[in-house]
Amino acid sequence: MKKDFIVTPWEVKGNIDYDKLIKEFGTEKIDDKTLNRIKKHTRDIHYMLRRNIFFSHRDLNWLLDEYEKGNKFFLYTGRAPSGPVHIGHLVPWIFTKWLQEKFNVELWFQLPDEEKFLFKENLTMKDTEKWTYENALDVIALGFDRRKTHFLIDTRHANLMYKEAVKVAKKLTFSSAKAAFGFTNETNIGQIFYTAMQAVPAFLPSVLAGKKIPCLIPLGFDQDVHFRYTRSVISKLGYYKPAIMHCRFLPGLQGMEKQGKMSASNEQTAIYTTDSKENVEFKIKKYAFSGGRETIKEHREKGGNPDIDVSYQWLTFLEEDDKKLEKIYNNYKNGSLLTSELKQILIEKLNKFLKEHQRKRELAKKQVERYIYKGF
Amino acid sequence: MKKDFIVTPWEVKGNIDYDKLIKEFGTEKIDDKTLNRIKKHTRDIHYMLRRNIFFSHRDLNWLLDEYEKGNKFFLYTGRAPSGPVHIGHLVPWIFTKWLQEKFNVELWFQLPDEEKFLFKENLTMKDTEKWTYENALDVIALGFDRRKTHFLIDTRHANLMYKEAVKVAKKLTFSSAKAAFGFTNETNIGQIFYTAMQAVPAFLPSVLAGKKIPCLIPLGFDQDVHFRYTRSVISKLGYYKPAIMHCRFLPGLQGMEKQGKMSASNEQTAIYTTDSKENVEFKIKKYAFSGGRETIKEHREKGGNPDIDVSYQWLTFLEEDDKKLEKIYNNYKNGSLLTSELKQILIEKLNKFLKEHQRKRELAKKQVERYIYKGF
Repeated sequence: MKKDFIVTPWEVKGNIDYDKLIKEFGTEKIDDKTLNRIKKHTRDIHYMLRRNIFFSHRDLNWLLDEYEKGNKFFLYTGRAPSGPVHIGHLVPWIFTKWLQEKFNVELWFQLPDEEKFLFKENLTMKDTEKWTYENALDVIALGFDRRKTHFLIDTRHANLMYKEAVKVAKKLTFSSAKAAFGFTNETNIGQIFYTAMQAVPAFLPSVLAGKKIPCLIPLGFDQDVHFRYTRSVISKLGYYKPAIMHCRFLPGLQGMEKQGKMSASNEQTAIYTTDSKENVEFKIKKYAFSGGRETIKEHREKGGNPDIDVSYQWLTFLEEDDKKLEKIYNNYKNGSLLTSELKQILIEKLNKFLKEHQRKRELAKKQVERYIYKGF
Repeated sequence: MKKDFIVTPWEVKGNIDYDKLIKEFGTEKIDDKTLNRIKKHTRDIHYMLRRNIFFSHRDLNWLLDEYEKGNKFFLYTGRAPSGPVHIGHLVPWIFTKWLQEKFNVELWFQLPDEEKFLFKENLTMKDTEKWTYENALDVIALGFDRRKTHFLIDTRHANLMYKEAVKVAKKLTFSSAKAAFGFTNETNIGQIFYTAMQAVPAFLPSVLAGKKIPCLIPLGFDQDVHFRYTRSVISKLGYYKPAIMHCRFLPGLQGMEKQGKMSASNEQTAIYTTDSKENVEFKIKKYAFSGGRETIKEHREKGGNPDIDVSYQWLTFLEEDDKKLEKIYNNYKNGSLLTSELKQILIEKLNKFLKEHQRKRELAKKQVERYIYKGF
């Protein structure tokens, strides 16, 4: 089947049809009924839910059933260190933090320091070790509760994880891995095994507690395949299948069609959390794909197209205030807001956020070790 | 190519042509010149070398070159726990202990508790955990120097090993693993990855010491494929290719052709280290394949065939005294020694050995933890 888009753990590109994704991957839409169930517990509803940024799920209603029975879940998400953290990475984490707060639950955050080493030719373990530390700072800076947040670093926690990973691996054949991930005979044997390590945090807290605990994984849709592939194995091992919530992709600066999702390895697609305010301004002004017209005159007359404008798209991921956002949308569409002005709004929003983030990121340097799971 | 024998890490059977094995696997014979080089350092020469039980090697002369330059090696061998230890397992370990003593070197002994779990459908990790402990007792009972012997248990030392294993795994493709081990698309992804874990102890001491140290691996020929497959990767990672010494297989009680090598999973092929003296007597009398004649009269007249007699074969692995062995050989061949008498010699030899082994095995129960590597 010819498709206009690609969604794999290694590449996300094209005009993504999210309805098609839901159908293809066999997930469910997060509908109003489910939103209302969530709201019963959280009182308000996060803007990423209101705006359909988190749009799809697996077994979320089952998870809420369990929660309502008093069977608390834990959260699991992560980051494979291979480069600096960018704004796109923060999207599911910001939402995860909200879930942690509202449901008052534990978060297990995996930093699989071997994953990108295995998948990227020129990346060394020394590199990923450095990025593990750097990326951990960004996670901590978002304000996760230290007493309820546990980092798992695959090589540092291998004593806990490898033993469980082989139990997963025993139940998965190469041909099934091939089908799930598109592996070939030339794929290295570390890549083939890796998905078993990614499955582990979804049930490790149950192993440690000696009882089954429900798990909720908020993630970018491209990571769904790991769990689509291993959920049934996790249940065969005697644990709950993890529930999942999927979010849309933050487009790269030059737009989804041209560049795909924001990627840390392409400087021209991304705003990093460590970028200076001058750099943010420069990149947005130079690269952010515009939905505006050729001339100011034409723009004033016909208006811009916020639906393809990257600056506007980004604001939907970052601006909490619905009314402010609606105003920007309307003003851009009717031509009263110019592209340069829209970009300026985004630049200010980003720089205000990053200034605070960078301050907290500095403070995080003293806290990294405390977040790393030590209870074994 | 049709062959009369099979040698893989999972099956050893048939009339093994050891010269053919050497040719096929590209190893070298341990010749008199090499034996003399060894003797220069060890003074005497172990009966397993004199008798060609250790018959083949890789890079042994290079290892001796390094040793003579003052570059000491370490030893690496191991045991994948899946059942009780039998006499056949002890063969390379007895020789390894001699090497440790004579060269005064460290031994790293791997107990890969995930290997057989991954390869045997019905074996659980609980099972291999139990066998890890039981098998460790047998290793310790042989008298390895506690200060120079370090057990590596894959799941307990995964914090050390997994990080190094992924470096090996990155350089091995599925198609190469398929060719080396005969994997298929239905092979599980843990089996595919496992060889990377088996490679690690061959260079882990170099990682820990922060310098390249030569490694010598004494092993059964069936395990050679793991290192044939990973030696070049180990060298690409910046360490020495391990040298290897290969031993012949101790036949099962009913002989190589019928049963293959002694196998722990087949009660009728094996004498376990925990067998009672009555059980040893019973099994040898009942099962040990005889090279004797149909009747005592015929045996006295025409003599027996020690070359196919399993009791005699076993004595070549166990009886240190060449003269005693020669006498047994001649007497059996000329018919003056009957099969029942030959079996009695073996029974006494075994029971004498096992009595002492079982005593030391009891004492070992207090020592297991001390042998497990803790320097990390």
